[in-house]
This record gives sequence, structure tokens and C-alpha cells, in this order.
Amino acid sequence: MRTNIGHLGSAIKMSILQVQKITEQMAKSSIKQCEVKYNVKTPKGTRDRDPIQMTILEDVFSTIIRCFKRHDAVTIDTPVFELKEVLAGKYGEESKLIYDLQDQGGEALALRYDLTVPFARYVAMHKIKSIKRYQIGKVYRRDQPAMTRGRYREFYQCDFDIAGDHGLMLADAECLRIMYEVLSELNLGDFVIKINHRRLLDGLFSACDVPSNKFVPACSSIDKLDKIPWEDVRRELCEDKGLSPEAADKIGSYVQLTGCLDLVERLESDEHLNNQPSAKVALQEMRLLLDYCKALGIQERISFDLSLARGLDYYTGVIYEAVLKGFTYNPNSPSAELTGSNETDLNSSVKNKKSSKKDKKAKEQLEEESVTSGESMAVGSVAGGGRYDGLVGMFSSSGTRVPCVGFSFGVERLLAIKEALSNSSDKNKCSVRPTETEVMVAGAHKGLIMQRLQCCQLLWDANIKATMSHKNHPKLLDQLQYCESTGIPLAVVLGESELARNTVKLRDIESREEYEVLYTDLVNKIKEVLSTKYHK
Amino acid sequence: MRTNIGHLGSAIKMSILQVQKITEQMAKSSIKQCEVKYNVKTPKGTRDRDPIQMTILEDVFSTIIRCFKRHDAVTIDTPVFELKEVLAGKYGEESKLIYDLQDQGGEALALRYDLTVPFARYVAMHKIKSIKRYQIGKVYRRDQPAMTRGRYREFYQCDFDIAGDHGLMLADAECLRIMYEVLSELNLGDFVIKINHRRLLDGLFSACDVPSNKFVPACSSIDKLDKIPWEDVRRELCEDKGLSPEAADKIGSYVQLTGCLDLVERLESDEHLNNQPSAKVALQEMRLLLDYCKALGIQERISFDLSLARGLDYYTGVIYEAVLKGFTYNPNSPSAELTGSNETDLNSSVKNKKSSKKDKKAKEQLEEESVTSGESMAVGSVAGGGRYDGLVGMFSSSGTRVPCVGFSFGVERLLAIKEALSNSSDKNKCSVRPTETEVMVAGAHKGLIMQRLQCCQLLWDANIKATMSHKNHPKLLDQLQYCESTGIPLAVVLGESELARNTVKLRDIESREEYEVLYTDLVNKIKEVLSTKYHK
Repeated sequence: MRTNIGHLGSAIKMSILQVQKITEQMAKSSIKQCEVKYNVKTPKGTRDRDPIQMTILEDVFSTIIRCFKRHDAVTIDTPVFELKEVLAGKYGEESKLIYDLQDQGGEALALRYDLTVPFARYVAMHKIKSIKRYQIGKVYRRDQPAMTRGRYREFYQCDFDIAGDHGLMLADAECLRIMYEVLSELNLGDFVIKINHRRLLDGLFSACDVPSNKFVPACSSIDKLDKIPWEDVRRELCEDKGLSPEAADKIGSYVQLTGCLDLVERLESDEHLNNQPSAKVALQEMRLLLDYCKALGIQERISFDLSLARGLDYYTGVIYEAVLKGFTYNPNSPSAELTGSNETDLNSSVKNKKSSKKDKKAKEQLEEESVTSGESMAVGSVAGGGRYDGLVGMFSSSGTRVPCVGFSFGVERLLAIKEALSNSSDKNKCSVRPTETEVMVAGAHKGLIMQRLQCCQLLWDANIKATMSHKNHPKLLDQLQYCESTGIPLAVVLGESELARNTVKLRDIESREEYEVLYTDLVNKIKEVLSTKYHK
Repeated sequence: MRTNIGHLGSAIKMSILQVQKITEQMAKSSIKQCEVKYNVKTPKGTRDRDPIQMTILEDVFSTIIRCFKRHDAVTIDTPVFELKEVLAGKYGEESKLIYDLQDQGGEALALRYDLTVPFARYVAMHKIKSIKRYQIGKVYRRDQPAMTRGRYREFYQCDFDIAGDHGLMLADAECLRIMYEVLSELNLGDFVIKINHRRLLDGLFSACDVPSNKFVPACSSIDKLDKIPWEDVRRELCEDKGLSPEAADKIGSYVQLTGCLDLVERLESDEHLNNQPSAKVALQEMRLLLDYCKALGIQERISFDLSLARGLDYYTGVIYEAVLKGFTYNPNSPSAELTGSNETDLNSSVKNKKSSKKDKKAKEQLEEESVTSGESMAVGSVAGGGRYDGLVGMFSSSGTRVPCVGFSFGVERLLAIKEALSNSSDKNKCSVRPTETEVMVAGAHKGLIMQRLQCCQLLWDANIKATMSHKNHPKLLDQLQYCESTGIPLAVVLGESELARNTVKLRDIESREEYEVLYTDLVNKIKEVLSTKYHK
């Protein structure tokens, strides 16, 4: 251990300053200062994330991943672009939003539009029979900005899927349990997971005498029930989708129903639905799923909701969507309002009328996303998914069928909520730290470069997160100020007189207490203080 | 706590089977089995990563990030594509390898080619004066496959950079310290970090009477000295680059020199270099850097190497490259050989003549990368970087200069080495686990679906990583076999007779020991066994 470091480095002090001056002069003269002729920015619909946003992102992702890992899940990685053929015919009308790569001689390529289709391609291509995987990655959609202000063209998705020919509803129930665990652990207040069944909707439309070619258009109207009242949906069904008023009213009598096992029983005894084989099987599956949800202890968060339809074509069975109750959508307000529930402190961030500019921005973003989302999420809607048993088969030359069920978290929305919450908390405290640094190695006066470097070495060798100013002669006040603004709890303050005694000062930034510590005891003392401070 | 769960679920057993059969029939008939008319694959030069590869990747990334965080670093995120103008004029000849996006009406976009240019754009655009950031992300290069077999077009980079007007060589020294920490902690055997200085090379060429327009071509020949002997480099300098034999011989007398402070002193007293102002300043910087490396305790890994040149144009000061000594390149062998050093167990994987097919593949990949790398890395070369003081200014309309220094880990190579090592270890043991699952909840006999679900709920609620088969009637042997093949250490075995006694069997997979545990004690017992097993 180096202890006697008081008299190093002074010999080179002069030459550093001289060299630095010459170096800077040479650097300045050698830079060809080309005039920047364009607006330096990120592409339309994309953005950078700053260190604070990244800290929130890492925190949310690690919570999600922890839940996935608790459930025996593996992860995979797929390329950010796929053959155009892989994506073709999977997204219906939305296909026009796919980003293509330029033909530079070679294959026709496109940026991935979601993580589900690449996953199905992966399962088919590698001839996988059974897998439980999660994947977090960016996906790309050329949404028209006029339609979708505030919605990003590059955004994260976070998917969990179970592929394989399994016992009925077992994988489906585990997916619901994982959504439940993630939303509970993210600590975003009360939530509900709505469930429904694609085949039940088919049967229901049949029972209401809707012609089968109008199932899909009718579905997309029904899907709006979380945003607009039934009267408006009814008008759309009749006027835009061409349903008879009688059919619309019959639909209305069903799709406003929500419940649990009681609703299954009520529908099972419904004579119209009883004539529809697909509805009958779907109801039996729903009953089983609800039984399993009860066994998994999540039945209180589950709501069987006949208005849930979901946009994508490829679902073939159970569908679901998770909604945060702390956020509701008020369509009558011109600048739609977010209101928090009373259970959590969400309120403080979104209700506060004197909210900061940053709050406002985050709020606007949430609102804009809510109105324009392609897959029609309400404000509080943060996850959705369902069963898609046909997708893998579309990539298998032998036609091998691999049933799948899974879901996707709207992580961008979760991140926006978490950012709004962190902005609304006490501004005087460093609530989100972009670094984990524990100790600043500071100099009490000019110079001490070598001594600061050696002290850092000591701490880094001991696996302590430490930093020092890169200035040759930093001011002590600036160094301590850096600790306060970035939340570093401790500073080691080096000074000639202390070093001559083989000691340093250890300073608690918050309390401003300082005490002298033997250099040889420094590492142990720091570890002791940190473990007391954070009960590590 | 649920204890009496023995007699649940049997009432619904019949209906599950019936419903499942009908559901499957309906699913099969409803899938439009489109014939797959194209070869389902990933785009040329890209690949999927499987769960084992992802586990190794996460392990390597988390080691690297841990080191970065020890050094007060933040992280940022930038879009995967940039305006074409941002990338233009930054990569010299290599610009032709940039992936462009198709013009779909809007901005001209291209996939990022590295993380350095987007970082410089970020610093300029957000008017940042000082930042220490890391970033891990994929970058894209349309390398010609004929030239570069085995080299990927989509690959990870892992960058660390310090921007800001700091004390001379302080940020540079910390970069070297971080490279040292990462390579030590990745545990890949002995390594050396070569350093050199761009201005010293300029001065050296001047002193050897090389015309200034031939500095860059001469540099690229010099850069090959880690792969081919001096005689071949000399021939290239004279025959291809048009240098006089005298100039080439003078260069040769310098670039074969390596050392430490001794070399600085030798060059400082060299009368030819002494006439070159840029060489003089560079040598003073090198002296200071070596002093700082000593203070940081890394001087033994640093080698001042005059043959180090590095490819990219934008470097303006110190340059460096880290080389693993466990891997060397033999240019005389037609199928270039990787040889391990004796210090580590790298040998076992790469020297073993009876290596597995997977080993061979990993080895070939390393070899191919080594010969063809655009930035000319030798086999063992796993990181490189340097100072680039002019790049940020190229994005600043006000011409604000923000000096930068940083480096990039060749993480794909680190991953390939780690994969080769893991493949070579004992095949009978599950050396790399793609999951972290601790407990399998198994059924001793048919059924027990509800009971298995409820037991899983109990464990998940207690934050225990648990799984169960998704089959309705899994065989006990299959369930235990799954534990062995995926490394799950414990199984809870449920059986009707034990459940009637409110007990379960807890089985240690490795020792095959089984003991009966009260259901109410299960969670505590599992936690106790796991903490003993792993000294958690």
C-alpha cells in the first residue's frame, strides 16, 4: 500500500502546463472547421435518450427482466432488419408503415416492425418445438407525423412469448401471471387485466346476425369502447360499417358486459351463443383460464371484458390487455386529462396544475400516444397480447404448426409514466442518479494530480466506485458541488498537510461532516460508511 | 397459506381434454397454410443469437458495464439510423459500406456505422461541454462477403468516451485504466495495451523525409506490422506506396521499437525527431501519460509501440490498442493457427486437436475476422481507440471544440472467445445456463395441474425462480430430465399421498436426495437449501 505520496508529481507540474498549451494551440489550428450546412438533429420520429432517461429505462427493464427470469425464460436476439418477404403479409394495412432499406445490390430488406414476427421466423427457422423467451428491442414504424404527433418511429418493445404444443390455457395463464407480477413490481398503482377470446367474438357476431365479412370491421369499432361511449360506437357500426340497427343493438347488449366466472356462466346459458360452436369452445377455454388464474392468485386483477378486441389479425384465441387504473382518459376535455387514482402518488405528478415544463411535456406525450396509437391503447393501457397459433406455420416449409401465446409491454409508455413521476418528485433531491459513483477523490488545493490518481487506483482496486476531476487544478468547492449535483455520498479530500501525516479527510456530503482517516484505513473506512449508509 | 390442495381440479379434468381436442382441430383447420416460397433465413451477414449465446453476451456486457460504472460513467442512447449528412465524410473510403434506408418520402437516412460519430453528434447537438459516457449497441457495415467471410454486417460495439476540455492526458490515462480493468475482469489471460501518438508518427515520417501526402498511405502499411514481418511492410512501402528505400529503412529503424519510459527518453534524444515540433510535443505527452499509468498501477500492461498506427482518420493524439497474448497469429500456416499462452486455460479450447465442430467454427470465425477486419485487428486485438479532438466541432454550427478520447471494445471477438471457451469445457456439465431457474414444480403422477399452479404461485410470491411443465400430464422422469439438462438444482415433487399429509418432496437434482417437507415450511426450506448450495 502506497502511503507516502505527498511529494510526488511536483517536478512535472511546469512541463504539463507548457505541453498542454502547445497541444491545444496545435489542435485548434489543425481542425478543419467545415461549416455545418444542415440542421444537426436526429431523424424525424426518433430521439436521443439522456443519462437520466437511461437510468429510468434500465430500472424498468431490469424489473421486467427479473420477473421474466423468475419464470424460467430465456432470451434471444434477432437482427434489426429482416428479409422483406418475412414481414410481407403480416401486418395488413399497416404494412405501408414498414421502413425499407435501399437496394444496394443484394437482398430486399426492411427494418423489423415488431418482435413477434421475427420470433415466429426464429422458431420456424431453427425448428424449435418449445421455447419460453423474452426479448427487448427497438422496432420501427413510419407513422405519419400529422396523424400521430408525439408517437415515435423508433421505439422499444418488450415481448414475452411461450411457443409449444402445451396443455390448454396453461401457457396463457402463466402469461397473465407474469403481466401481473411485472405491473405489481413496477409499482404503478392499481391495474386490471382485461381478457377476451377471438372465437367468442366470432360466435357473438354470428349470433347477432353480422355477416362474416364484417367481423373484422366490426371488431375495430368495438375496440374503441375504452375511448368513446357506446352510442358513438353504435353509430359507427351502423353508418360506417353498414350493420343493421338490430344487429348493432344485439352486439351492444353483449359488448358492454364485464365480469368473471359469473359472466362465463351467464353467456353459457345464453341460447343465441349456445348455437355457435366457436363461442361454446371459447367459453369453456375462458372458464378454464379463470380457474387457473384463481390457482395463480391473480383472479382479482382479471376482468372478462367482451369489448376487448385488439387490432392485429394474427390472434386466434385468448386476447388480453393490461390497463393502469391510475390513468384515465377524458374524451370531453379538449386537452385530454390524465387523472391519478387515490391509491398511489401518481396524482402528484399528473394532477398538479403548477406542473413543471418537463411534466407537461411528458403528459402531452402520454395524451398524444393515447389518441393515436396504431394498436389502439387507452391512456392506461400498458400491455397487450394473446394467442397466435398460425404465425410460426407461415414460416415453416413443412407446415409445422407451433402454437404460441405471448404479450408485449408498451415500455415507452411505462417509461414516460416513470419519467413524469420522477420529474414531479422533490427537485432539491437528486431523485434519479445517472451514475452509481460512491466516492469523489478531491484535492483540497492546486495540483495533487498524482496523489488523486493514486488514491483512485486504491479505490478502484478495492472495487469502490470512485471518480476525480480531470482538471489539473480543480477548485475544492467545484468538486464538492459535483458530488451534490450528482448524488455522490462521500468525498476523500487530499491535502499536503494531511498527506504528510499519511492521512486524508473523509467527508460526508449530505451532513458535511469531515474526519481524518489514516490512508491505510481508507478503503475499510469507506466500505464501513457505505454499508451503514445503505444497509448493504 | 394454501395447504389442503389435494382434491382440487379433478372435476374439470374431463372437460379440459375434450375442449383441448376441439380447440386443436379448429386451429388446424383455420390456419391458411400458405406455401413458403422463399428461403426463410436471416439477411446476409446477420444472425440470430440463441439463449446460450445470449447468456454469454449478458455476462460479458455486465462485466464491462460494471467497470464503466466504477468510473462514474453515464450511458446514453441514440437512434439506430442517422441523417445521411451526419455520417457523410467521416469514414473515408469505408463510406461505401454504409447501409442506406430507402427514400420513402422524407429525410435521407442511413444505419449507423459506429457509435463514435453518433456520440459526437449527440455532444454537439445537446451542447454538452463535458461527459463521460458508455454505449453498447449494434452497428452496420455492408462488408463485401468475398473479402470478409465470417465477418458480420450487423455487430455490437461497446464504446467508452470522455468528452471535455480536461487536464492533459488525464482522461486518456483513465481510458487506459478502464481497458485494463475490463480485460482483467473478463479473465482472458495475459494482455498488453499498445500505445502510440498520431503526431509522433507525423513527426517521424517527416524526419524520415516522407512527403506529407504519403503519411496516410504509409500509416496503413505500418499498421500491418502485427500481422506481417517488416520485410513485407518495407516492400509495400517502396513498391506500392512509392517511398524511397532510404526513407523506408529510416522508418524501419523506428517502427520496430517498443518500450516504455526508456523509449520516450531514447526518442527525445534522437536528433532527427528533435527537429520535429509535433514529435517533440507528442513525446512530452507520452511521458506524462506513462507517468499517470504508473500512478494508476497499470504500467506493466502498457507498451509504447511505434508500429501502432490505427486506421481511422479522425484520431488527433494518443492512440491505443489492447491485445490478448493468449491468442497469436501465425501467418505461415495456411489455416492460421490460434495458440494459447500457458498462463490460462485458453489452450484447452484452441489447441486441442480433437476439438469439437463447434470449437472449430468459433476458431475459424476468429481467424477470418483477424485477417479481414476493416480496422485491422490482429487475432488477439480486442479493443482500440484514441483521442479525436476535431469530430464534435464538425457538428457544431458555432464551431465549438469539444476534445474527446475514448475506445471501443471488439465485443464480438470477446464473445467469440468466451463461446469457444465455454464449448470446450466439460460437455457433461451444464456450464452455461440460459436460465436462472431454481426450482421445478413437478407432479409425481398424472394431473395435479391445479396443485402445480398453486405451488408455483407460492414460490413466485416468495421471489423464488420456479417453473412447471405446461403439459397436462407430464411424466416425472421428463420433468427431472428437464432439470438436469437446464441445470435447475431443486425439484418439488407433488403427489396425492404427500398432499393428503400436507407435505411435498423436495429433491436435490444432483445428489438425487429426496426428503419430505411440510407444505407450510416449503419456502423457507428452499431458501435455506439454495443459500447453503450457493453461499448466497
